[in-house]
Formats: sequence, C-alpha cells, structure tokens
Amino acid sequence: MSQRTLLLLSQDNAHYERLLKAAHLPHLRILRADNQSDAEKLIGEAHILMAEPARAKPLLAKANKLSWFQSTYAGVDVLLDTRCRRDYQLTNVRGIFGPLMSEYVFGHLLSLMRQLPLYREQQKQRLWQSHPYQGLKGRTLLILGTGSIGQHIAHTGKHFGMKVLGVSRSGRERAGFDQVYQLPALNKMLTQADVIVSVLPATRETHHLFTASRFEHCKPGAILFNVGRGNAINEGDLLTALRTGKLGMAVLDVFEQEPLPADSPLWGQPNLIITPHNSAYSFPDDVAQIFVRNYIRFIDGQPLDGKIDFDKGY
Amino acid sequence: MSQRTLLLLSQDNAHYERLLKAAHLPHLRILRADNQSDAEKLIGEAHILMAEPARAKPLLAKANKLSWFQSTYAGVDVLLDTRCRRDYQLTNVRGIFGPLMSEYVFGHLLSLMRQLPLYREQQKQRLWQSHPYQGLKGRTLLILGTGSIGQHIAHTGKHFGMKVLGVSRSGRERAGFDQVYQLPALNKMLTQADVIVSVLPATRETHHLFTASRFEHCKPGAILFNVGRGNAINEGDLLTALRTGKLGMAVLDVFEQEPLPADSPLWGQPNLIITPHNSAYSFPDDVAQIFVRNYIRFIDGQPLDGKIDFDKGY
Repeated sequence: MSQRTLLLLSQDNAHYERLLKAAHLPHLRILRADNQSDAEKLIGEAHILMAEPARAKPLLAKANKLSWFQSTYAGVDVLLDTRCRRDYQLTNVRGIFGPLMSEYVFGHLLSLMRQLPLYREQQKQRLWQSHPYQGLKGRTLLILGTGSIGQHIAHTGKHFGMKVLGVSRSGRERAGFDQVYQLPALNKMLTQADVIVSVLPATRETHHLFTASRFEHCKPGAILFNVGRGNAINEGDLLTALRTGKLGMAVLDVFEQEPLPADSPLWGQPNLIITPHNSAYSFPDDVAQIFVRNYIRFIDGQPLDGKIDFDKGY
Repeated sequence: MSQRTLLLLSQDNAHYERLLKAAHLPHLRILRADNQSDAEKLIGEAHILMAEPARAKPLLAKANKLSWFQSTYAGVDVLLDTRCRRDYQLTNVRGIFGPLMSEYVFGHLLSLMRQLPLYREQQKQRLWQSHPYQGLKGRTLLILGTGSIGQHIAHTGKHFGMKVLGVSRSGRERAGFDQVYQLPALNKMLTQADVIVSVLPATRETHHLFTASRFEHCKPGAILFNVGRGNAINEGDLLTALRTGKLGMAVLDVFEQEPLPADSPLWGQPNLIITPHNSAYSFPDDVAQIFVRNYIRFIDGQPLDGKIDFDKGY
C-alpha cells in the first residue's frame, strides 16, 4: 500500500504530532503546518487533513490530493457553505463533548438555582442568611438536539430527577429522554419547560429558531441555554424577551458573531450569562484517539465514524 | 385503640398540620405549639413529637407521655447529649437530603472547575477570553459517610465519570462507591483524592477528624466540602492549610459555631466558600410523607424508619 500524507493544521499541532507518532500508524507520513506560509506550501501534499475547520477552509481549493478531512471540532458549519467543495469525506469529533457540555449546563444551572453569586456577595459582608430554593427534581428539561451531546445532557437531567423532553428532526426515541418530538411541536413543549437547552448545529432549519414569537410560548421563569450554534437565536429578540420577563434567564456560550463584539448590548443584560464559546473543548488526547480509530477504518476502506452529510449539515 | 396526641413544634407547623389532617391518620389528635408558652402548656400531653431538635430539647424533661420523637431534620446531635433522656424512640428524616446535597456539592464543584465567578467578572468588562480547564472525568472523589446522602453523592460522582472512594465505620461495600474503607485508612486515601466530601454526623469519633496533621496528607489542589457537621474540622487548622496551600479550596456549609460569628477569620479567606447551613432543606411535603409512613408503623408496633441509636449517634 502506498504512503498517505496527513497534514496537521491546528493550535495543538505539536501535541497531535507526538501522540500520532507514538501510535505508529502504518503507511502514514505526518506533516505539520504551524503557520500560514507552511500551510500553503504543504497543502498540496495532503491526502488527509486534521484541522480546525476555519483554519483549513481558505486552503481547501489548493488541497489537490485531499480525500479525508478530520475536523478537530464538533462544529463544521463553515465547511458546509454550498460554494465550498464537497468531493472529500468530512468527519467531525463526536462523543467527547457530551460530558463537558453537561458539566457546563449543570454547573450554571445549579449555580443559578442555589444562588451561588448571592452567597458570594453575602460572604464579603460576613452575612449569615439563608434564602429559599427548590431542587431540580420534578422540573422539566427540554433539549433541542438528541444526538450524543443531547443524550448525555438528558442522562444528567434524569440523574437529577428531571423530566426530560427532546426535539429532533426525526422525533425518534432516544436514551435518556422521556419523550422526543419533531420541530413543529416546539411551541407546545416550551410551555412546559423550566430549562431549555439548545445543542443544535448551524443549518438552514435551525437559523433563528428562537424569535420574539417563539419566546411568547416560554414559561416566564424559564432558563434558556445555547451551547450549540449562535444562529439558532435572534439575539435582538432574546434581549427583549429577557428585558420584558418573557424569559427568566439565558446562558449563552455561542453567538451570531464570535467573538461577541465589545459594543454588543448582550454584555450588560443582568439576567444573561455570557461565556466565550468554551462549554466544551477538544482535548487533544481524545481527538487523537478518534483519529487513530478512523485512520484504521480509512485504510481498510470502511465507513468513517462521525461522517458529515453535507446536505443535512451534521 | 386509644387516641394518641401529636405535638407539632417546628417553623412549618401550619403546613404540617394541613398535610397531616388531610392524611386522616387513625386515632391521632394533632396539636400545634407555635410559640414558647403554648409549647410549655401542651408538652405534657404529647405521646408523639414532630419537631426541630433544638426547639424541643429544653421541653423534653416535661414530656411525661413521650414515646416517639420524629425529628424534622437529619441532624439530631443536640439530643444525643448523655445528660438528656433516652427513654423514647428518636427518628430522623433520611433519604430526602441526598439529591439536594448532591446538587449543592456539584453546583459548587462545577462552578469552581469552570471558573464561573471569573467569567462573571470578565462579562462586566466585556472581555471575551477563554481559560483552560479540566473535566470531572477520571478525578477521584472521596466521601466520608456512606449512608443515603453519601450514596447519592457517590452516584452523581459516577455519573460524571469520577472514581469514587468512601470511608465509613464498617468499611462495608455500598452502591455507587468503587471502594469503601474504614477510618484508619483515611490518610492514605487523602493522598489520592481530588475532591473530599464529609457528610459525617457529629459524634465523638468524628470530632476534629480534620486537623493540621490530617491536611498534611491532602493533595495540594484538593477541594474539601463539609456538608455534615462542623465539629469534623478544626477550623483554625483548616485556615492554616488553606493559607499555606496544603489544601486548594474548601466549601463549608457547617461550622463549629452557627451562625458563624461575624468576627470569624473564615469569612475573609479567599479560597474558602461559606454558605449558611442550607445545603439541604427539609421540604415539609417530604417530611410529612415520612411521618405518615412511620405513624402507621408506630400504631402497628413495627420498627420505625430512621431510628437513631443513641450510642452510635446515627
């Protein structure tokens, strides 16, 4: 069998090179491009790319030998532009973000339910004073997106005694969910949800799923998380819903424009929590492991794990 | 069968009276003492007390007909004083605090791991900046106390992929724990623990379990939770361990003296989080349910749930 060339194009190149060399993968030559000029020089040799989507996108046109692109991220939406080439296999990383996103969602949720910031302020004032609270048991959690991330969050919700509802394209039953519905049922489900979590990818169907008319259906005290993609929410409408009390609280890790511009009115909204797109993180050890498994499948001509359907967008 | 008199002595008297009357318990007369003078007047009639331990303690000597005392709290240590009478059945509430304490522990733990207070500060400055973090997966959680609360916290730890170790008097295997050891093994286990949670009741054996020499065995970055009783920790030694970095962080809900005095140096320690003994809460609906089940057992002459062994202290 002839040699294959892998080009690494990521912020963790050195780490990936060390891990993949140690795996002694057969017939694999590993190249690294740590800067733009190296990338342009080497891209023509790559049969395989392991890269951050946005970093690789401008080079794709010159990747004459490209057969497989392993994204180091879950989100590959920048590569789904219909003007981009689609004559290669695109795979993303799956199954490693569920636990981290679940930690993010429940860390924020429990911090809010238990008013941790308030007790932090009270401690500064040496004030011993308790405030009433409720537990998660019996509350309703609605998750948009029932893939591996959604399922993990669902299991965590069940662990804490929540009722867990899901929304997906198919409405198919999924582990961890009490019930799963299709998108047209969303308004009805919002009337029941205490906590709403979107893990949706950016596709045409998910664009501005949450608008003013949607927020009309939310419970007044509901908490909305977005750990999927920023395009699912109309941010102007969200701000109005938060100001008028249509929605109790929002916790956003993703935005229509990232980084969120310093002059965005979102920053100053008191019942809105902002984090810089870090609810999950591609730990190089996990991503390398996924690559190694997929490379064996690749040279054996088997279907790859995490393969993206360019039309569906996930 | 002759009538029994129940005296309610708690901050939730009205709520309990409504719930217990609605349960139509046979042969039960329900009295309420909402203040000190009513309590002194009625205590002599009570066959059964449903009360907060500290509120009932000074009246016990006058409770001539007392046969059963249902505590509305888990902690009954004020009644275990050897100078107090022990000629009645004492039961506490169990099984309802695990979920709430688990929410407390993991709310604080995830908030710390994900640096939520830091992102809160960054938001005020409109600063989009990510910081590295690790997940809970693979970390070691050590729980002191393997009863129903400890088991619930253990299950939550397992859900998040942690290795879960326990310490108990017996060292018996328990659901949710990878391994359970007896107290003499504590020092050795501390060397492995990333997160330590004490749910221990106040007994002679748990008094000042954590002293300077104990903290010598902790991992430098370890996080210590106390949601059991304050007497388990020597607070002066803890402060030194936090100042010198023997311990990374402590989260305390219970203290040697409560409320924590305003002049306590604990308030101002940066790597110490203080909450006012509210990690769990006796929701009246849950406590009333426990009383109803136990009352049926009581009139049938069956052993009561949650019965306290005055010598063991739990």
